[in-house]
Amino acid sequence: MDNDLTKRLLDAVDKRFDEQVAFLAELAGHPSTRGFEQSAQRCLASQLEALGYATDSWEIKVSDIANLPGFSPVIGDYANAVNVVGSHRSQTNRGRSLILNGHIDVVPAGPLDMWDSPPFEPRIEGGCMYGRGVGDMKAGLVANLYALNALKAIGYQPAAAVYFQSVVEEECTGNGMLACFQRGYLADAALIPEPFAEQLVSAQVGVIWFQVRVQGRPVHVLEAGSGFNAIDASLPLIAALKELEKRWNAPTHTHPHYAHHAHPLNLNIGKIEGGDWASSVPAWCCIDVRMGVYPGQDIEAACAEIEACLFAAADQDAYLRKNRPAIVYNGFLAEGYCLADHDKAATRLAIATLENAHFAVTGKKLQQAAITATTDARFPGLYWDTPALVYGPAADAIHGFNERVELESVRRVTQSIALFIAGWCGLEKA
Amino acid sequence: MDNDLTKRLLDAVDKRFDEQVAFLAELAGHPSTRGFEQSAQRCLASQLEALGYATDSWEIKVSDIANLPGFSPVIGDYANAVNVVGSHRSQTNRGRSLILNGHIDVVPAGPLDMWDSPPFEPRIEGGCMYGRGVGDMKAGLVANLYALNALKAIGYQPAAAVYFQSVVEEECTGNGMLACFQRGYLADAALIPEPFAEQLVSAQVGVIWFQVRVQGRPVHVLEAGSGFNAIDASLPLIAALKELEKRWNAPTHTHPHYAHHAHPLNLNIGKIEGGDWASSVPAWCCIDVRMGVYPGQDIEAACAEIEACLFAAADQDAYLRKNRPAIVYNGFLAEGYCLADHDKAATRLAIATLENAHFAVTGKKLQQAAITATTDARFPGLYWDTPALVYGPAADAIHGFNERVELESVRRVTQSIALFIAGWCGLEKA
Repeated sequence: MDNDLTKRLLDAVDKRFDEQVAFLAELAGHPSTRGFEQSAQRCLASQLEALGYATDSWEIKVSDIANLPGFSPVIGDYANAVNVVGSHRSQTNRGRSLILNGHIDVVPAGPLDMWDSPPFEPRIEGGCMYGRGVGDMKAGLVANLYALNALKAIGYQPAAAVYFQSVVEEECTGNGMLACFQRGYLADAALIPEPFAEQLVSAQVGVIWFQVRVQGRPVHVLEAGSGFNAIDASLPLIAALKELEKRWNAPTHTHPHYAHHAHPLNLNIGKIEGGDWASSVPAWCCIDVRMGVYPGQDIEAACAEIEACLFAAADQDAYLRKNRPAIVYNGFLAEGYCLADHDKAATRLAIATLENAHFAVTGKKLQQAAITATTDARFPGLYWDTPALVYGPAADAIHGFNERVELESVRRVTQSIALFIAGWCGLEKA
Repeated sequence: MDNDLTKRLLDAVDKRFDEQVAFLAELAGHPSTRGFEQSAQRCLASQLEALGYATDSWEIKVSDIANLPGFSPVIGDYANAVNVVGSHRSQTNRGRSLILNGHIDVVPAGPLDMWDSPPFEPRIEGGCMYGRGVGDMKAGLVANLYALNALKAIGYQPAAAVYFQSVVEEECTGNGMLACFQRGYLADAALIPEPFAEQLVSAQVGVIWFQVRVQGRPVHVLEAGSGFNAIDASLPLIAALKELEKRWNAPTHTHPHYAHHAHPLNLNIGKIEGGDWASSVPAWCCIDVRMGVYPGQDIEAACAEIEACLFAAADQDAYLRKNRPAIVYNGFLAEGYCLADHDKAATRLAIATLENAHFAVTGKKLQQAAITATTDARFPGLYWDTPALVYGPAADAIHGFNERVELESVRRVTQSIALFIAGWCGLEKA
């Protein structure tokens, strides 16, 4: 791409950046936690329609995707779980097609009093926008859209199909992106601007979610000795899981992309609920656990190991031996994925194209990073043989309080994405 | 009391026992958990009015009782926390006055699927009525009422004031009974038919409720090492409390009325809640704890010991040392009470009167028992210098699933209470 076109494209992003930030604030004002994504999706869909994209909004059906590779089990149904895709169709189709993907769902905000300002009333301070989901990953979603807008502003459009995807369910299963595949949205590459500080994600771990449910025998506390306290009983199970985490992170259990990392596979007791009255021996306790696995580590075998660990701990207790805890999979059964191992000409080309775009914007070499989380990139990468680039802005405290995204980083990423689209898809006159 | 009158009184209870059981079932159909006692209280109040008692229903005001001895701290307000008292006034006032007390509040039912039948749809099987609160203590409440009914049925009434009390808040603070005192309902003795298997409670422990609230530092689990997991941090605090429980139950830390008991002071982790997302490092964890104390053990000193124990455990952790857990008292700060040590002529007479009544009904000597729970008897006993007899039917699984009360035991207790009223208050023609 000639220098003049590059400059015009970067300028076009700059010119619209205030508008882009305002739209990000609007979108971040929708509290799109799991089950409540609809208003944010409607906001995006009407924007896509106004821009002239063929816009497809549909409710995910579990039965449509339950047998596809990469599916994760779901508790509850998907009533109101709506994906949105805006499609650009090329007149020439001379170039390579592209998925621009991001997720609309955000994790819960937690107790409001731990935020400096309301999590769904985004504010800007010191060059950052603050709010739940601004980094993870509404800034990336909006960057995808405004990269396309910048092309149009200078009279061009991609010379191949581009699918702008706003999906649900990234934060717990990935079934939103899977449903896009089932709906027929395939392309030659995918770009997902998750907030990893303008680095290209070279590898991501897999993630398993499970619940451990202990049932006790409730009695009045006055006869506590004769009952069975389900909260107490959960504590050695948690301890056993911590031991498993240690074993899985031992130097003998490593992975080439994570050899530099002291503790790649994090176990997280993310939620616990048990009992309902201080003076009743609690009859139930449920813990929600997240465990990382290496790329290539077999999910079924990992689950079996987790179960064996929990049952061995349960067997230490006379009551739990006869009343084993239930282990319920209710979210991610997600394999790891290494872009760096995706040995294919298209992958190399996609990476090189992004490297050029990143350099043109920042003057710096694109760094790669192996991350200890998962992203939807595993679907194109593992199951559709499609290179999937995860590259997005710098954000802080994602999943925490006072989540924030650096706006200048958002600007640079938007420019890089615009250049990447031009380079990967080629351009045609709009 | 002559044998003929005794026989007529027992017969009068028998004659109305089917009606009594039906009324118990009606009352037990009201799910009168904390905050939802109103419909059950209205049911009782209209029954009292129909029977001609001067009926007083009032909402507790915290400010009225907050400075009275025995008050326990309250989280939230007492909107809709309504006590009901039906007063019998004697024409002669020749006898001794009496409080017939019971509580209308019941503890939560827990998960419905752990019940064999719905907890608020009482059913009878094998001589027992099943349902939440049937034993603890609606059967006792109704026994008080039908004991009075039996007197009336044979043409008599107590020859002194009798206050039939249905109070809220017994299961968490006792502030309901305290509010009756503040309202002016005092008498020469109190009878509380809590379900302790037709034994007279000679001693009861004190109870302290507290919450331990840990705040963590939430981050995405991908950087779990940099965050601080509030659930993980709570586990050593629980372990420290268990050690405290051991020390308080050690042979060197005993009490004359509990010397025979292997473990009188039960610590119960009754409830735990923390986090909201498996893949977010949880920023908060709150545990609800109940701890027993001996009669005579100073509550303030016990609280100080609990706090010292928790802070010492917190100090073992670099983060918790700087971010100490909050300890919040949100319920019972209840002292223990020993009827057996209530060295007063009125107490001895009240016990003897109940012993006679019990023997006349059962042919057996009244057994005494030191219990490892608290009851509202501590208020009259400790603060109003009024003997308080706790004597009620046999029940099982109170605070558990499939709670039940033995109906023949309810019949006997009702008869004993009728005889006790006659003996204690004396009789006059109705």
